[in-house]
Amino acid sequence: MSISNSKIRRYPQRVESRDVDFMKRSTVMAFGDYILHTAGEDADLNGFGVRAFNAAYNASWVLTRFAYEIFRMPDEHERLTITTWVSDISRVMTTRNFEVFDGDGKRIAAAVSNWAMIDITTRRPLDLPALGLSGSMVQQFDSPIAPPRRLAAPTESHTWEHTVKYSDIDFNCHANSMKYLQWVVDTIPFDVIETKNFRRVDINFIHESRYGQQLSIAASLGDEYLYEIRNDQSTPICRIAIKME
Amino acid sequence: MSISNSKIRRYPQRVESRDVDFMKRSTVMAFGDYILHTAGEDADLNGFGVRAFNAAYNASWVLTRFAYEIFRMPDEHERLTITTWVSDISRVMTTRNFEVFDGDGKRIAAAVSNWAMIDITTRRPLDLPALGLSGSMVQQFDSPIAPPRRLAAPTESHTWEHTVKYSDIDFNCHANSMKYLQWVVDTIPFDVIETKNFRRVDINFIHESRYGQQLSIAASLGDEYLYEIRNDQSTPICRIAIKME
Repeated sequence: MSISNSKIRRYPQRVESRDVDFMKRSTVMAFGDYILHTAGEDADLNGFGVRAFNAAYNASWVLTRFAYEIFRMPDEHERLTITTWVSDISRVMTTRNFEVFDGDGKRIAAAVSNWAMIDITTRRPLDLPALGLSGSMVQQFDSPIAPPRRLAAPTESHTWEHTVKYSDIDFNCHANSMKYLQWVVDTIPFDVIETKNFRRVDINFIHESRYGQQLSIAASLGDEYLYEIRNDQSTPICRIAIKME
Repeated sequence: MSISNSKIRRYPQRVESRDVDFMKRSTVMAFGDYILHTAGEDADLNGFGVRAFNAAYNASWVLTRFAYEIFRMPDEHERLTITTWVSDISRVMTTRNFEVFDGDGKRIAAAVSNWAMIDITTRRPLDLPALGLSGSMVQQFDSPIAPPRRLAAPTESHTWEHTVKYSDIDFNCHANSMKYLQWVVDTIPFDVIETKNFRRVDINFIHESRYGQQLSIAASLGDEYLYEIRNDQSTPICRIAIKME
């Protein structure tokens, strides 16, 4: 490990044309991808990336919870700086934080994520200290926003269907994290997206979903939009809360 | 215009994690996006980008035809170099070419695209020489592959449906170019994608498709897969031919 514990690590990101919506601003999904991309970069550069653990232990990081708040959604072509640090390592979970700054150095977003390391074959969580992941990689900066909440099931039942497609899956053959968010955001009426801003997103990843699975999406649409994505056995696989303002 | 006519222009690109499929290789859609992204970068840097013409003439480039051949699909994290040049400007259409090289300098793909400039309000094509676009920006290198073909309608009729979603549309409120390809690739059986390689894609963009439109996709699946995407009036809006090996 080569982490300097006093120095925060910074990564550049640009809002690409393919990532903006009809308002020429980053989509909330692409913005989440930028943050998660930084997690991968930082883990790789500090010796605890997916590739290293995959090769050494047949292990992979999986995202279990993710929350982010957006104070201003950046425009097409904006150049951002994303800082990231790990603030906690318990037996089976790490907490990684992020702040996003615009070209003027203004903080436009912040995020907190929780990760487990699983055995790729058994899909069971692994003991992190046993893999050499320890407190030495922790940096003690303040949590930038309230951590991801444990979400309850929605009570009303607006429902939609989605079948997991080739373009939804990643190298694990499971749906990519931000695709869950895309499926629910795609159900939000156009005029809501046009007139409101995504303020905070909380996601609980509960089970993985596989190519070809037929999923249903249930929602209660109050002050906050609360979604549950269920597999073909009606088992919850993901819950998402979206706060718009 | 600041184009040097003897020097080919080069742009870096990295295969990002969110762009790879279950085989940890770039998806054919993301790879097409990398090429089109280079078109935008190069046009911007040489003074004839969307932003400049949008501001000056209420005009925008639209892609009318696109063909690319892939000799080797790059893996996750590979660093690529994409070269691009404009080889022809007629009254209403330009031809832009591309070659993609891997880290060893080996050519792994090549592409030819046709673009028109439209008035954003009327959606009608504009006269390019009248906008100052002239032969001085043309570079006379050889066409890297056969140009995009004019595609016929498919004869058989395998069909699928797709409704244009928020995540499909770009700043024009129309479906993003590579989304058309995604919709058809998502219909290809998993074992075909797993065992064959995308060798060549030809796309004819005929009409734009808007948010909320209910589209149908018809296909004839012979040696080459040929698709037609139709709008809710059964008007063809896009044809795509995919050759796999």
